[in-house]
Amino acid sequence: MKSLNILLICVAVLANGQQGNAQSSDRDIISTSRADQRYASTRGVVQKMLADNPPVLKFRPEMTKAEFSVWRDSMAAAMKQLMRHPQLDVPAPALMKTRQADGYRIEKWESYPLPGSVVPFLVLIPDGIDSEHPAKAAALCIPGFGMTKETLAGQTANDYSLEGDPLEAPGMNAMARQYAERGIVAVAVDNPSAGELSDNGVFDYLNTSRILLEMGWSYLGLASYQDKVILDWMKQQPYIPADRIIASGFSLGTEPMMALGLLDPTIHAFVYNDFLCATRERILVMTKPDSKGNRPFPNSIEHLIPQFLTRFDFPDIVCALAPRPIIFTEGGLDRDFDLVRKAYEISGDTSVVECHHYPKFADSSARAKIDEVPCGVDRQEYFNIVNCDPPSHHFKMPLVHPWLRKLGLAD
Amino acid sequence: MKSLNILLICVAVLANGQQGNAQSSDRDIISTSRADQRYASTRGVVQKMLADNPPVLKFRPEMTKAEFSVWRDSMAAAMKQLMRHPQLDVPAPALMKTRQADGYRIEKWESYPLPGSVVPFLVLIPDGIDSEHPAKAAALCIPGFGMTKETLAGQTANDYSLEGDPLEAPGMNAMARQYAERGIVAVAVDNPSAGELSDNGVFDYLNTSRILLEMGWSYLGLASYQDKVILDWMKQQPYIPADRIIASGFSLGTEPMMALGLLDPTIHAFVYNDFLCATRERILVMTKPDSKGNRPFPNSIEHLIPQFLTRFDFPDIVCALAPRPIIFTEGGLDRDFDLVRKAYEISGDTSVVECHHYPKFADSSARAKIDEVPCGVDRQEYFNIVNCDPPSHHFKMPLVHPWLRKLGLAD
Repeated sequence: MKSLNILLICVAVLANGQQGNAQSSDRDIISTSRADQRYASTRGVVQKMLADNPPVLKFRPEMTKAEFSVWRDSMAAAMKQLMRHPQLDVPAPALMKTRQADGYRIEKWESYPLPGSVVPFLVLIPDGIDSEHPAKAAALCIPGFGMTKETLAGQTANDYSLEGDPLEAPGMNAMARQYAERGIVAVAVDNPSAGELSDNGVFDYLNTSRILLEMGWSYLGLASYQDKVILDWMKQQPYIPADRIIASGFSLGTEPMMALGLLDPTIHAFVYNDFLCATRERILVMTKPDSKGNRPFPNSIEHLIPQFLTRFDFPDIVCALAPRPIIFTEGGLDRDFDLVRKAYEISGDTSVVECHHYPKFADSSARAKIDEVPCGVDRQEYFNIVNCDPPSHHFKMPLVHPWLRKLGLAD
Repeated sequence: MKSLNILLICVAVLANGQQGNAQSSDRDIISTSRADQRYASTRGVVQKMLADNPPVLKFRPEMTKAEFSVWRDSMAAAMKQLMRHPQLDVPAPALMKTRQADGYRIEKWESYPLPGSVVPFLVLIPDGIDSEHPAKAAALCIPGFGMTKETLAGQTANDYSLEGDPLEAPGMNAMARQYAERGIVAVAVDNPSAGELSDNGVFDYLNTSRILLEMGWSYLGLASYQDKVILDWMKQQPYIPADRIIASGFSLGTEPMMALGLLDPTIHAFVYNDFLCATRERILVMTKPDSKGNRPFPNSIEHLIPQFLTRFDFPDIVCALAPRPIIFTEGGLDRDFDLVRKAYEISGDTSVVECHHYPKFADSSARAKIDEVPCGVDRQEYFNIVNCDPPSHHFKMPLVHPWLRKLGLAD
C-alpha cells in the first residue's frame, strides 16, 4: 500500500497547487485504474519497486554520534563495493612537459592507472611554491560534462600539447587556474571519454559507459579510480601538504568527488559545485510525458551505477563526509541541506559546512519549502522546484575563496 | 600484448581484402600510435579490457562429456546469479476471458509475478485438446522488439481486450496462432514495456530498463522472471504435457528464451528465431565511425545485463542447452554453429540440432568462412559478414514445423 500512499500524496500536493508550474493530468503521474492497485505497465511496476525500496543506508537525522560513525564506515564500504577499483601496482606518473605562465607553472604529467592505459593530467604550481615552501593547500579539480582539463587550467580546451599560451579570458570554469592564482596547487584531470581521453575527438561517454557496464564496471567506477591514482600521487609530492587536499568537483565532476570522499578519508575538504540532487527522487517524480507520450529519461548512462540507489543517494553521501569541510555553491532543496547540517551537527561542527543557493533562489522567499517533490513534473519544472537555475551553472570561485580563507587553506 | 595481436590480426584481415565491403582506415579500428601501446582514449582502454578478458565460462570444444556436464551446471548457476529472479510465493494466474476462433480457443489470463504487478498472457488451445486429450506439445511464445502477444496470437496488435476477430491475414510473425493451427497449445506473452505492459501505449524499453538497472536488476532479468512464472503455470495445466514444452523466441524474445533454457532444465526444446550473434565480438568489431566520428552503439540498454559478458556469450549459452533439441532458423556464422554441433556431439546426439540460414546465405558459397570477424565495420557490414539479412527477419514456421514433426511434437 506504500506506493498507493505515495501516489495519493503526489496527487494531493498537485491538487493543492503547491507547485504553480506543475499542471497535473492523469498521464503526468504513474497511476493504475485497477481496484487491486496492480500495474500492467512495466513503468508502473518499476516505479513502485523503486518507491518501495529506499536506500538501505539512508542518513537518519536521529543518529547518535557513535551510530553516525558506524554508519559512515558502512557508507565507505558500500562505495568501495560499488566502485570496484582494481588493486594494481601502478607505474609512477611521469613528467612530460613544463611551461611557465604568469604567476604559476603548468606541468603536464602522465599516469598509468590500468594496463594499456595512459591518463595525462595537468599540475598548476604557483610561483614560489616548492618542496621547501609547500603550498597551504592543493586542489584536485574534476571537470563537468563536455569539459577538459585544459579548460580548467585556463588553456585552449583541445590544446592537449600545451602549445598555446594561457587564454586571456579563460572563463569562469577555469577552476584550476583560479586556485593557482590564489596560491593553491591545482591538479586538473579529464573525465573518461573526454578531452585527451576522447575517441579521436569524439567525447563518447555513452559507448564507453556501455562497454564498462557490460563488464560489470561503470563510468563512475573508472573515473573515480583514475582520479584516485592521481590523488595518491599528489600526496607524495613534497610541495603539496598531503593533509590539506581539497577535492573540487564541477557538475559531472561532483560524482567522482563524492566517491573519492567516501573512499579516501585523507581528503581534507570538498567543493561541491552543482545543485545537490536527490537522484532517486528525481527519477520518481520526473514523469510528465512529452507530446509523444515519452516520459523524461533520467540522465545518460555515464551516471548509471547498477545498485547505487539501493545503497544511498547523493544527499546521504555528502552527509557521510562530515565532519570534513564542504561548500555547496549551487544550492538545492533546503530539506536536503537541513539534513547535511544535521550530519555536521551530529559529528560535532556545523561551522565547516556552507550552503549557497543560485542567485535566482538566494532569497529564501524564492524557495518553496517542500518535503517531497511532487510527481508528474518535467525536467524544467523539476529544476525550478529544486531551486536549480541551469543558465547560471558555472564554477563559483567568489564563494569558494572566502570559505578557503576562513579554513586557513588560502590567503 | 594480446590486444596488439588482435589489432594486427584485424588489420591483416582487412588488408587481405577478405571482406569486400569493409574498407579499412586508421579511424575505423581502435588503435594507438604510442610506442608503449597504451591508449589515452577511454574507448581504447575499455576495448582492450573487453578483448583481454574473454568470458570465464566460454564453451571449450575439447571438453569431455563429464566436463561438459559440470560446465553446464556452472552456466546455469551463473545465469541464475545474473537474472536475479526473486523468490516469491506468487498468486495463481486467473482466467479473464475466453473467445472461440476457427479451430482453436483463445483464453486471456493474468499472472501476478510481483507485488503490485499484473502480467496478462494469452493461451491458444486447439479444438479437441482438453485434460482428457492433452496436446502433443505446448509452446511458450516470446515476441520481438515492438511486438505484442496479440501479434503472436494473430489478433490486432493493440486489441488487448480481444474484442476484434482474429485477423484474416495475421502475417508471418503470428507464431502462437501458427502453433495452435498445428495442434500445439501456444502461450503468448508480452515482453516488459511492450503492448499491454507499455506505459499508456509508449513502449518505453529504455526508461524501464534504466530504472531496473539502477536497482541492480535488468530488463532481461525481469522479462525472464515474468516468463518463468507463466512457464511454471503451463506445467500445471492438465492439457499441457509438462515434459514437452517448447520455448520459442523471436528476435529480442530469444534472450529470455536462452535465460529460461539455462534456468529451467525441464524445457524440452527450443526455437531460436534470430541469427545467432556473438554479442561480445560484435561490440569489439563494430567500430567504424559515422560521418560525425561516432562509432556504432552496440544496441539499446534493454540488452544490457551488467557482467553478462564476463560469464558467457550467446553461442556459449546455446551450447549449454545440449542435448535438448534446438532449431536455428536465421543462421549466423558457420564458426558458431560448428561449436553448437560440437556441444551436441559431446552430449551425445547431433540429430536434434538444426541450423538454417537466411535464404540469401543458404548456399554455403554465399557465406564467408571466417574465424574472427574483422574490426572496423559498421552495423550493415557486420550483418553482412555474419550472414544476417535483416529484411528477411520474421518467424519461420516452414522450417520449424517439419522439425517439430521429426521430434514427434506435432502432426
